[in-house]
Amino acid sequence: MADFSQQLSALREGIDELDTQLVELLAKRNQITTQVGQLKAQAGMPVYVPEREKALIASRRAQAEALGVSADLTEDLLRRVMRESYHTQNNNYRCVKPDLDNVVVIGGAGALGRVFVSLFERSNYTVSVVEKDDWDNGRAYAVLSSASLVVVAVPINLTESVIGKLTMLPKACVLADITSIKAKPLDAMLAVHEGPVVGLHPMFGPDAPGMIKQVVVVCDGRRSEQYAWLIEQMRIWGATIHDSTAKEHDQAMAYIQVMRHFNTFVYGQHLKGENPDLESLTMFSSPIYRLELAMVGRLFAQSPQLYADIIFNNPDNFALLRRFHERFGLALTLLEEGNKKGFVEQFMKVGAWFGDYAKKCLVDSKQMLLKADDGQLLRDK
Amino acid sequence: MADFSQQLSALREGIDELDTQLVELLAKRNQITTQVGQLKAQAGMPVYVPEREKALIASRRAQAEALGVSADLTEDLLRRVMRESYHTQNNNYRCVKPDLDNVVVIGGAGALGRVFVSLFERSNYTVSVVEKDDWDNGRAYAVLSSASLVVVAVPINLTESVIGKLTMLPKACVLADITSIKAKPLDAMLAVHEGPVVGLHPMFGPDAPGMIKQVVVVCDGRRSEQYAWLIEQMRIWGATIHDSTAKEHDQAMAYIQVMRHFNTFVYGQHLKGENPDLESLTMFSSPIYRLELAMVGRLFAQSPQLYADIIFNNPDNFALLRRFHERFGLALTLLEEGNKKGFVEQFMKVGAWFGDYAKKCLVDSKQMLLKADDGQLLRDK
Repeated sequence: MADFSQQLSALREGIDELDTQLVELLAKRNQITTQVGQLKAQAGMPVYVPEREKALIASRRAQAEALGVSADLTEDLLRRVMRESYHTQNNNYRCVKPDLDNVVVIGGAGALGRVFVSLFERSNYTVSVVEKDDWDNGRAYAVLSSASLVVVAVPINLTESVIGKLTMLPKACVLADITSIKAKPLDAMLAVHEGPVVGLHPMFGPDAPGMIKQVVVVCDGRRSEQYAWLIEQMRIWGATIHDSTAKEHDQAMAYIQVMRHFNTFVYGQHLKGENPDLESLTMFSSPIYRLELAMVGRLFAQSPQLYADIIFNNPDNFALLRRFHERFGLALTLLEEGNKKGFVEQFMKVGAWFGDYAKKCLVDSKQMLLKADDGQLLRDK
Repeated sequence: MADFSQQLSALREGIDELDTQLVELLAKRNQITTQVGQLKAQAGMPVYVPEREKALIASRRAQAEALGVSADLTEDLLRRVMRESYHTQNNNYRCVKPDLDNVVVIGGAGALGRVFVSLFERSNYTVSVVEKDDWDNGRAYAVLSSASLVVVAVPINLTESVIGKLTMLPKACVLADITSIKAKPLDAMLAVHEGPVVGLHPMFGPDAPGMIKQVVVVCDGRRSEQYAWLIEQMRIWGATIHDSTAKEHDQAMAYIQVMRHFNTFVYGQHLKGENPDLESLTMFSSPIYRLELAMVGRLFAQSPQLYADIIFNNPDNFALLRRFHERFGLALTLLEEGNKKGFVEQFMKVGAWFGDYAKKCLVDSKQMLLKADDGQLLRDK
């Protein structure tokens, strides 16, 4: 046994030596990617280049296979490394419209507002921030009267009233918002301002590495040629642009946000009402179940007002929620009648409706769940 | 611009060179971990050693920080690398009970059954598999009459009837099952067999890397000292053992499996009924929303019968589902009455019930969501 221990120690030293080299490699890579960032900033080249990323991964996958190393492992590691370099480069970006006078972000101290302020500043724009107090002391009026771009980044429930105050904008000023509903703010902006108007919805939260690889929904209001530069600027920041009407957007959000969050809210209420031991439930849970629990729990670490605003915003959505309630009741009747056959038939019909999408969900989420366990989701670290 | 292009090319070559070294490093590491696996198999040492893993990560994190490399990046990479070596080592394990005559896995061709067969074989046990046909041709009777351990690994809806046939087991034979419900199979096993009985529930699916770091719930039936070797064997395979009564287990599963899967089933029915464009919804979705969609979609790529069995199994659970339905209805009334204040109050009460657990869910799931985007969850690859 002593001999085995010695052999094991020797092998572990070998692994430690290689892992040490790995960290040194990361340090060197970091130095080079920092230089890449600086070069790109000077030359106005985009940070995220999909073709380069694809080619890099393809080359290393091929090399891995040739050496008997898992290609998937290699890709996973590279993607994680690349995410870090996107996140930490804190790049400057090429300025699409250098002659622009003044960008004003209303609510620029908020989580997402701050992201936009930072991106504009790192693209060499002059940025002013307008907050609540500035409306009383006259500063808001002064700043907005000379703005070239105004981005409204305030909480949903304040958005329309804030937009309503924007009567002083220069005619050529671009007016935009980043609210997670689009129809009402867009109508409000079109009503208060004669110039170019666009509704944006960045489909990511403030934790994401800036805008790289994130989706921004763009809903045209008026005079898109006048704000085309802004869309290009966001592309330079790495965003994927998704054009949509405000109506399509809000309908999608009915499912994506309202339906989902309300269901999660009720699920949380239900758990509270039934009062199981959460630590115990977690202990009994495999990775998929821990993820399901986490998706419920996480809601309640966030702002009640934010979710109330999203859920209550559009009464048209209540009918959608009602129909879910009815469907739940009908499905329950299947159970209470012991109609297993009926349940299976309905399950298969839903499967047919999802089609290949269901398989894609299964395959993609399986990969994610393996990663959930790497990171010890909800487990003691 | 030509000069910038040249400089960028040179820097990219530098990155490619380092990434190439990374892959070579992975190949060398693989060679050493394979040797570690062989050594451990010979010496009967466990594959997964928590203290070693912790120490390894701590050392490399410290080194990373000293070199200005992200410690979290380093840890993420190492965890991913280690998962690969656990998964691919296909080790042999120390045999806890070498004098054991015969392990029989009933349903050993099924997904989870196969995992057990493989683990037993790699621990040097003699394993026989009994399948459906073997009951008619006499082979089942022959094999089971001389078994030292029988593991029942058949679908839920067949479990009790299969257990009911096990009247021929030797007195000292250990009888176990791996069904995802525990009270009924345990009672059935205690009724049909006089010897040692234990109910197991492996809390992971067949995609997981064997049993390493996975949870197995153990519900004692009878004579635990007689099957203690089996529990130790599972620990050697890397499992975390969680003791529980069958009742506690089934109550936990009411939340973890029945409540969750039924809700997801209804959600899927609801989407089918409302018929939105799924590709479009995905396009509008940020990572968290794509994950939510994936968690619904994935259900319908799986067996309707499996979920029907789980959901219908215990009528006591229907009342739990009914109460969810009632709570959903009450919450809807809040909306329809425009009672935003009431909603916020109730939201905060649920938050208070979750306590710190909610924050843990948020923090842990945020990490996961960054990884979801690395892997392009539901995005075109």
